[in-house]
Amino acid sequence: MEKLTIVKVGGKIVEEEDSLDALLNDFSKIKGFKLLVHGGGRSATKLASQLGIESKMVGGRRITDAETLRVVTMVYGGLVNKNIVARLQSMNANALGLTGADMNLIRSVKRPVKDVDYGFVGDVEKVNAELLADLIAKGVVPVLAPLTHDGHGSMLNTNADTIAGETAKALSSFFDVTLIFCFEKRGVLMDANDDDSVIPSLTRSEYEAYVKKEIIKGGMLPKLENAFKVIEGGAKKVFITSASALSDPESGTVLQ
Amino acid sequence: MEKLTIVKVGGKIVEEEDSLDALLNDFSKIKGFKLLVHGGGRSATKLASQLGIESKMVGGRRITDAETLRVVTMVYGGLVNKNIVARLQSMNANALGLTGADMNLIRSVKRPVKDVDYGFVGDVEKVNAELLADLIAKGVVPVLAPLTHDGHGSMLNTNADTIAGETAKALSSFFDVTLIFCFEKRGVLMDANDDDSVIPSLTRSEYEAYVKKEIIKGGMLPKLENAFKVIEGGAKKVFITSASALSDPESGTVLQ
Repeated sequence: MEKLTIVKVGGKIVEEEDSLDALLNDFSKIKGFKLLVHGGGRSATKLASQLGIESKMVGGRRITDAETLRVVTMVYGGLVNKNIVARLQSMNANALGLTGADMNLIRSVKRPVKDVDYGFVGDVEKVNAELLADLIAKGVVPVLAPLTHDGHGSMLNTNADTIAGETAKALSSFFDVTLIFCFEKRGVLMDANDDDSVIPSLTRSEYEAYVKKEIIKGGMLPKLENAFKVIEGGAKKVFITSASALSDPESGTVLQ
Repeated sequence: MEKLTIVKVGGKIVEEEDSLDALLNDFSKIKGFKLLVHGGGRSATKLASQLGIESKMVGGRRITDAETLRVVTMVYGGLVNKNIVARLQSMNANALGLTGADMNLIRSVKRPVKDVDYGFVGDVEKVNAELLADLIAKGVVPVLAPLTHDGHGSMLNTNADTIAGETAKALSSFFDVTLIFCFEKRGVLMDANDDDSVIPSLTRSEYEAYVKKEIIKGGMLPKLENAFKVIEGGAKKVFITSASALSDPESGTVLQ
C-alpha cells in the first residue's frame, strides 16, 4: 500500500496568516499522498461575538445551538476551509475542501443529552472512505473541516481530533496511514515545564505505566487515548508534535 | 454520451427554507447525472449588514473588498453550500459542495480595474473538468458555490450564471449537457406583464429578431447572450424557466 500522511492542526495555527502560511508551506512539501484536518474555534468565537451570540463551552466543547451551528458552518466550512484550499492550490497541492456531509463522508449522530445538552454536536457513526481514497490516489489533497452531518439534513459540529482519528482509521484499508496530531508542545513531555523533555516513543503499555506514575495526566489523557485507538484501528504510526515540527515529526512523540 | 442536467438557481430560492426544500426535492428527482449551481447574495448582504459592512452594488454586481470577500466566502462556500449539501444527502443525492478553488476546478483572474474597481471579483479563465466529470460519472452530485480562485492563494467572488455556463461548456466534452437557468419568470416572455406569454423556443436568429423588435430587452439580454454562448460552447440545450417549474422545464423557454 502507498503511504498517506494525515495532519491535524488546531484552530490557532490556521487562523493567523503567518503561522498558517508556514504550516501550509511545510504541509505542501510532505512527500506522497496527504490530507489535512483543521480546527477554527477562535474564528468561530470571534464571529459569534460580532453577531452578539455568546459562546458557551463545557469541558472545552462548544455548546452548539441553531445560531452557533450557522456560525461554525460558515467559519469552518467556508472561511477557514476555503482560505486553506486557495493557499494550498497556490503551493501546487490540489486541495479539495470537505465537510463530513460532502459525498456523505462522515455521518454522525447528534450527541444524546445526558448531563449537558451540547446541541448540534455530532458523534461520528460512519466514515465512507471509498470515494475519498479514490481522489487521494489521483493526487487530490483533501482538507477536512470539523463538521459532519446527520443524514437527515442537518450539519453537526464535530471535534477535529475525532475527525482526524476516524478518517485515519477508515483510510487504513486503502493506505499505510501516518497521522500527525499537532498541538502546542513539541511532543508528550516527561515534565510539563520542560519543553525539551519529549518522550520519543510510546507503546500502550509504556503509556499506561506513565499514567500510573502520574507523569502523563490531564489534557494529554483523552488525546493519547484517541491516538492509541487510531493505532489499534489500523494506522501505522501516530505522531504527537507541534505544527512547527511538521517537517521533522520524528522530533516529537511517536505511538506505534 | 450520458446525459447531465445542470441547474442554476439564484439566491432568493435557496435562502428561504420552504422554497429551498421544494427546489431540492424537485432537483433530487431529476433522472440521471446532475449538478447544482447556487447564488446566495441576500444572505451575504444580511451577514455583511450584521457585521457593519456596507454592501455596494454596481450594475447588480457586488463590490468585493477584503472584508466582503470574507463574508461571501463564509456565506456562499459555507452556510448556503453546506446547508444544500446536507439536505440533498437526506434526499439520497450524494452531494459534494465545491468552490472553484477545490480541485482547482475554476481558476479566474481578478477583474481588471476600468471604470469600476470591483475588488476581489473573478472573471473565469479556465475550468478543469476532468476530476469533476469522474465524480459525476460515479454518481456524485456537485453543488457549486459562486466562488473561484486566482491560483495565487486568494478566493474570488464570481457570478453564478457565469459559473453555470462555463461549467456546462467544459462538461460538454464528457456528457450531453442540459443547462436549466432558473429565474423569477416561467420563461422568456413576449410581454413582460403577461406571465403566460412564454416564448417556447428560441434560436439565435429568432432571438436577434426579437431584440430588433425590442420584444426582448433589458436584463434578459445578458442572460440570453450568456445562454447562447453555452449552446455554442457545446451544451445540447439551455432552458430558461422558474425554479418552481424544475420538474417540467419544457414549460419554459428552450434554446438550442
